[in-house]
Amino acid sequence: MVERRLGEFELIERYFAPLADGAGAAGLKDDAAVYTPQDGHDIVVSKDMLASGVHFFPEDPPAAIAAKALRVNLSDIASKGARPTAYALGLGLASDVDEHWIAEFCKGLGEDQRTYGITLLGGDTIKTGGRMVLSVTFFGELPRGSTVRRTSASEGDYIYLTGTVGDAALGLQLRLSAERAGQIGLSEDDADFLLNRYLLPQPRVVAADAVRQFASASMDVSDGLAADLEHMCKAADLWAHVELDQLPLSRAAGNWVAAKPSDITTVITGGDDYELLCAVAPNHAEGFERAVSKAGVPVTRIGRFVSPEPTDPRVQFLSSEGVLDLHGVSGYRHV
Amino acid sequence: MVERRLGEFELIERYFAPLADGAGAAGLKDDAAVYTPQDGHDIVVSKDMLASGVHFFPEDPPAAIAAKALRVNLSDIASKGARPTAYALGLGLASDVDEHWIAEFCKGLGEDQRTYGITLLGGDTIKTGGRMVLSVTFFGELPRGSTVRRTSASEGDYIYLTGTVGDAALGLQLRLSAERAGQIGLSEDDADFLLNRYLLPQPRVVAADAVRQFASASMDVSDGLAADLEHMCKAADLWAHVELDQLPLSRAAGNWVAAKPSDITTVITGGDDYELLCAVAPNHAEGFERAVSKAGVPVTRIGRFVSPEPTDPRVQFLSSEGVLDLHGVSGYRHV
Repeated sequence: MVERRLGEFELIERYFAPLADGAGAAGLKDDAAVYTPQDGHDIVVSKDMLASGVHFFPEDPPAAIAAKALRVNLSDIASKGARPTAYALGLGLASDVDEHWIAEFCKGLGEDQRTYGITLLGGDTIKTGGRMVLSVTFFGELPRGSTVRRTSASEGDYIYLTGTVGDAALGLQLRLSAERAGQIGLSEDDADFLLNRYLLPQPRVVAADAVRQFASASMDVSDGLAADLEHMCKAADLWAHVELDQLPLSRAAGNWVAAKPSDITTVITGGDDYELLCAVAPNHAEGFERAVSKAGVPVTRIGRFVSPEPTDPRVQFLSSEGVLDLHGVSGYRHV
Repeated sequence: MVERRLGEFELIERYFAPLADGAGAAGLKDDAAVYTPQDGHDIVVSKDMLASGVHFFPEDPPAAIAAKALRVNLSDIASKGARPTAYALGLGLASDVDEHWIAEFCKGLGEDQRTYGITLLGGDTIKTGGRMVLSVTFFGELPRGSTVRRTSASEGDYIYLTGTVGDAALGLQLRLSAERAGQIGLSEDDADFLLNRYLLPQPRVVAADAVRQFASASMDVSDGLAADLEHMCKAADLWAHVELDQLPLSRAAGNWVAAKPSDITTVITGGDDYELLCAVAPNHAEGFERAVSKAGVPVTRIGRFVSPEPTDPRVQFLSSEGVLDLHGVSGYRHV
């Protein structure tokens, strides 16, 4: 609960209770919420914490911070093949937060609730005595036993990636350095696109059914394609070959890499993509591609899982020029 | 995930994965967990955040901080009449946390997991860039539709309180002032008892069945008896009469109040009791008392919900000397 000085109960009543429109939330008038699952279903639970200055910039629009906190979780839920339903919000406020900030933040929550058909179940608000910390616990549902794990890829499975890779990592570079766009010779449109891809993840919620039907393993790309694919490989004791030329780049990222080819490593190792990375058996490939495309999500086959090889790392990015050397490239760095 | 520098994956594998022994946690090797509810059951969800320096002292033993983070939630779950099952842990680490702290913290989690028959479902670990912030989302289960709300008290219901009131608030005073025990003339035993009641809540998990069977409304006392009973009254548009002489005090609190009678206001308005406050219809009183006692939990009838009166506050603490005046008494203050 927000500390008394901030008007705890008034804030909850005015801003948060209208977001908690399900019966189980009881208008946030109780200390706990009730979640009623469908019989025969499992609940997929995701929890992502975000700290100001680490996962977002304190000066970001409050509505964008709200959206990011929800969407990084929505991306996890979708990657497991589940339909998102509700979330619990832990809001650790910095001392300089005012009512206007809360109002804008809640507006952002409300907009995403409508976009994704989800509701606020309950939560807690405190003052941290330091920086702002957000903790979102997200719930999704799917038929019992149908969760798609990230650990279950098989040798020979194709590797698929939704959307485009690297935009957010390049966007973050633009956020950190005002001169960067000029150095690269990037158009204003391209710069805006990349900045927005960093600010506002676009979770592939509508592709969840396709994942559940056709993927043998799945995760979302949040720590960078190289690191996350490495995780998938390690969990299944497999290696992976990725065709560098097949990597789906946005126009903006393509322009960037054309101007500065070595930044392909940022594209591959940077984070915050929130695209889906799926292992799909060859006999399910056609069905998977059709279902994801039908959901309106671009998807690209970027490579294949292979049996153990004596290479390090396990993930080899291949091109006509050979294997891209990622040794010494710093991995994912938050802000 | 813990930032790379701290050895994110090693820490998870060494300390947190052994706590996640349910199938749904998948050994914490996935981005989301799977919770499989019993058909025909609801899930009660509680979320409490705790910040260092606000809800606990940074120098508290890590195992006690872990226990507190779980127990304040266990108390909420019990107050709804549910059986606790699992929790998701959000761990926002301060930069000065070392591996030893993590090891001790996880030892505390493990001990409480065994005590309460619960398991770690999943979570997230970050560096906050500031103070430590903990966010626990707790899950409990009960037959569908049987959650006991705090909003549903009826006129004429008896007011019951488990255990004793005010110990933690007095314990906090001892924590904040080394001279306090001497000023009151408190024995070392009494002081230790009160300090421990502040440090380690004892959630009334075993009384949950009795609450579900017999209580018409229920909550746990965390913000102080006066404030929390006021909440219950407000939600049902009722008033309450509490017999001051009936309030269950521990020996230590009794000695304190005997030495300094005006501190009865601290007992009533202080927080962190984590006892159950229940409304029980008179025809269920005997059954409730018997069931709670059978569970090994002391319980006391302290008053009655009454129809609206022109008094403010709604909760009247009555004694032979009249109504206790709580106007101007500061309400619950964290650390």
